[in-house]
Amino acid sequence: MKIDLKMPIIGFMHSPYREKFGIPRQPNLVQVESYIEMQAPYNDVLAFQGIEAFSHLWLIWQFHDNKNQTDAHPTVQKQQNPCFRAQVRPPRLGGNQKIGVFATRSMYRPAPIGLSVVQFKQVKKVGKSLRVYVTGADLLHGTPILDIKPYIQYSDAVPDAQSGYAQDEPIRKTVLWMDTAEAQKNQLLGSGVLQPQIVQELEQVLSLDPRPAYQDDAERIYTMNFADFDVSFRVDQHAVHILKIVLIAVD
Amino acid sequence: MKIDLKMPIIGFMHSPYREKFGIPRQPNLVQVESYIEMQAPYNDVLAFQGIEAFSHLWLIWQFHDNKNQTDAHPTVQKQQNPCFRAQVRPPRLGGNQKIGVFATRSMYRPAPIGLSVVQFKQVKKVGKSLRVYVTGADLLHGTPILDIKPYIQYSDAVPDAQSGYAQDEPIRKTVLWMDTAEAQKNQLLGSGVLQPQIVQELEQVLSLDPRPAYQDDAERIYTMNFADFDVSFRVDQHAVHILKIVLIAVD
Repeated sequence: MKIDLKMPIIGFMHSPYREKFGIPRQPNLVQVESYIEMQAPYNDVLAFQGIEAFSHLWLIWQFHDNKNQTDAHPTVQKQQNPCFRAQVRPPRLGGNQKIGVFATRSMYRPAPIGLSVVQFKQVKKVGKSLRVYVTGADLLHGTPILDIKPYIQYSDAVPDAQSGYAQDEPIRKTVLWMDTAEAQKNQLLGSGVLQPQIVQELEQVLSLDPRPAYQDDAERIYTMNFADFDVSFRVDQHAVHILKIVLIAVD
Repeated sequence: MKIDLKMPIIGFMHSPYREKFGIPRQPNLVQVESYIEMQAPYNDVLAFQGIEAFSHLWLIWQFHDNKNQTDAHPTVQKQQNPCFRAQVRPPRLGGNQKIGVFATRSMYRPAPIGLSVVQFKQVKKVGKSLRVYVTGADLLHGTPILDIKPYIQYSDAVPDAQSGYAQDEPIRKTVLWMDTAEAQKNQLLGSGVLQPQIVQELEQVLSLDPRPAYQDDAERIYTMNFADFDVSFRVDQHAVHILKIVLIAVD
């Protein structure tokens, strides 16, 4: 009996999320703009004809950056060996309570498939490349895309679904720019290196408090790479305080 | 650059849909009961701990019965060759209008991935096997399952999504049992071979008018294999008329 199958990668995500730290735990919590760069032969504009009639799309993608996996592309041998872990500790439960992997959307699962609903913006030809622009994606820059499907309202939107520990949206915190960071931001905005849209997206990301659930040290300073910037911040009970924003040297 | 990846198959669907003909075009249109038989090592009840807090699940599965594909398990070579078809003819548009494959949920797509939301019923150990019971699945019997994820209300249910040509549920027709079929049904029910639940499921399937969109011959008789039965029917403007129901010889 066949125990695995091969899937083509149809494109790669280009997003401001340059590291896992900071990525919202579900899509559509932050209106980040990103695009899928389609791979040949799927970079054919005909393959998207009619898609503009849909407001939302499903992205089906690969969790490709699992450091705890020795190989992001599991092989038959690996699936047969007992490295399957039946339980995980979701951050939503504080990171110390174990539950079944199929009761979570954890990246550490047998088939490393991610599923995200996003808003469709446009399909755009840029030279030879074809880009599918979306907002709300929660995908790391470079994520391999396996499939794009239209969101079908009458079957996909279950109005009264019970979602256990993930019933409600996470609480959002106020985001404050400290003096130094405010000055840095204004200078970067003034020189055109930083776009106002990135500022908005960054504030939305930080409002979700990206710290690991089990860490609650109001003095601890975190640094996150978002788009072309390193952003330092700390979080207390009331707010997220941005301490620094600096342009990363682009090679 | 990697152009494909391997996925394990975690289980196989057991459903009354024994052929593609008759399967609703989207999940949850028919409350058919089915179950996933989990494969080792994923047949571990611990992997489902906590799942009972969710009313709905996503099934991610393989379109495995594509007769127009020469190989249901595409290989690297095949993806590189230009057999990719950018456009398909969705039945919802009458079967003669072409649109982009990524604007549809057609089975003829680069990564043969299907996506269905279903209602979760229970996880049950039956001897050494572990079964995940669901209702509303639109999966052929024997479909390989790649992943099971909880449905998360706040991110997955988009209340006001626009879904183009698939905005509304399909219209349902009245289903009538003709005299001969009614007698056969009663006999099968009386002998315990046919369960009342299968009758209800069958009526729901037929109410969706499973004929190909481009066929509209009120005299033509169709036969469909559903669960252990062959069912013959014809469809006119007003109703679906069941003509015959017979038990298939089980080998």
